[in-house]
Amino acid sequence: MKRILIIGIGAGDPDHLTLQAVKAIGRTDAFFILDKGEAKHDLVGLRQDMIKEHAREPYRLVEARDPERDRTTPAYAAAVEEWRSRRADLYEAFIRDELGDDETGAILVWGDPGLYDSTLAGIEEVVERGGVAFEYEVVAGITSVSALTARHRTSLTRVARPVHITTGRRLAQEGPVAADDVVVMLDARCAFADLGAEYHIYWGAYLGTPDEILVSGPVPEVADRIRELRAQARERKGWIMDTYLLRRVLPS
Amino acid sequence: MKRILIIGIGAGDPDHLTLQAVKAIGRTDAFFILDKGEAKHDLVGLRQDMIKEHAREPYRLVEARDPERDRTTPAYAAAVEEWRSRRADLYEAFIRDELGDDETGAILVWGDPGLYDSTLAGIEEVVERGGVAFEYEVVAGITSVSALTARHRTSLTRVARPVHITTGRRLAQEGPVAADDVVVMLDARCAFADLGAEYHIYWGAYLGTPDEILVSGPVPEVADRIRELRAQARERKGWIMDTYLLRRVLPS
Repeated sequence: MKRILIIGIGAGDPDHLTLQAVKAIGRTDAFFILDKGEAKHDLVGLRQDMIKEHAREPYRLVEARDPERDRTTPAYAAAVEEWRSRRADLYEAFIRDELGDDETGAILVWGDPGLYDSTLAGIEEVVERGGVAFEYEVVAGITSVSALTARHRTSLTRVARPVHITTGRRLAQEGPVAADDVVVMLDARCAFADLGAEYHIYWGAYLGTPDEILVSGPVPEVADRIRELRAQARERKGWIMDTYLLRRVLPS
Repeated sequence: MKRILIIGIGAGDPDHLTLQAVKAIGRTDAFFILDKGEAKHDLVGLRQDMIKEHAREPYRLVEARDPERDRTTPAYAAAVEEWRSRRADLYEAFIRDELGDDETGAILVWGDPGLYDSTLAGIEEVVERGGVAFEYEVVAGITSVSALTARHRTSLTRVARPVHITTGRRLAQEGPVAADDVVVMLDARCAFADLGAEYHIYWGAYLGTPDEILVSGPVPEVADRIRELRAQARERKGWIMDTYLLRRVLPS
């Protein structure tokens, strides 16, 4: 039987790799690499360095160009579905054409495959189509959320309290109402900026990499600085990956 | 300067250790081990196996008995604070009495030090007291949440949707209202059991260990089985660590 490993490789630091991920990389015959174009090319490079270090010869790299996603439509979820389906085509072709019987293919995923990543859904779509037989396995990875709180040396949760993980888009629509501790991912528009001093922000970009930037403080005191650092870094590198925790200060 | 490493060691599988955690263990002079009593003794054993495998001689093990927590009081948060403060006494004594200047001490934490763990808060309390000078660092770990979704091969988040992480106590009080995807931790009373068929549960106990149990399905179909398995396992082993994801089925 052909086998696919969906391997979480952590938030950016090559040492975020777990021993389980290292072993999974070591038993892979072919790695499927999606190239997201020039802008994020250093991410592709980082991933290839991990493969070079932990894969066992002989192995193969199979590269494909990530489908473009329509980022202009207001139908966000529908656009993601459509894009995911084209990605599933690529996964299916990889499994069918590039893996021999009893061979193992791997897809390396930044962070954890469970947190705002579409690889697993793409593979599930291939399973549902039923066009190619294979088994698959998921290897958990260090999330950017864990990386963020570790680098800020703060806890994600407070005693007996919940934490809410959401997107920038939703934060902009709803505000941080679902919990006193809210993690925001995929926020290109700094939706936190108008919050008051009762909110403390722990912000991080390029977590775990040499480019890492960390800022924390009451939102009104640090919002401009985060916006500025974010714009500069984005300009300089051509892409940015950042996330943050909003913590409402509770009356003591 | 003395140095403390708070190292996330993952959800139960020794291969959840990251390369960063392995390196951190390798540069530790003294490990601080809190013994939680007989019941969870196999967790202590698992942790000591990790130390044996990755620590470099010479190293020391410093053991202490975890303070008892008052589990009968309704003032849950206050009881935790008080217990945490007695734990801080132990950390302070460890740093003051057991570490030489320029030595490194480590505390190994199941899962990730940011997610429902009190080690970091205890260390912060020692810092605030100001009685002993030291630096500290946090090493992110694989959370039981990532382990749960990886083993169930399901995603934690759905496209553009939030996820809420909460406790069994809060779920019992509030229901799964804060999001359509809710992770519940520390639930000794199966607070999910009364939910309807619109909720799918992904439940896991002893994740990553040889005792791992996984059950998933619509809540009304699997609730009794989970309750039964949970009670049996708890009886057999004397302790249980479990967590689950509730996913509301959305109209398509």
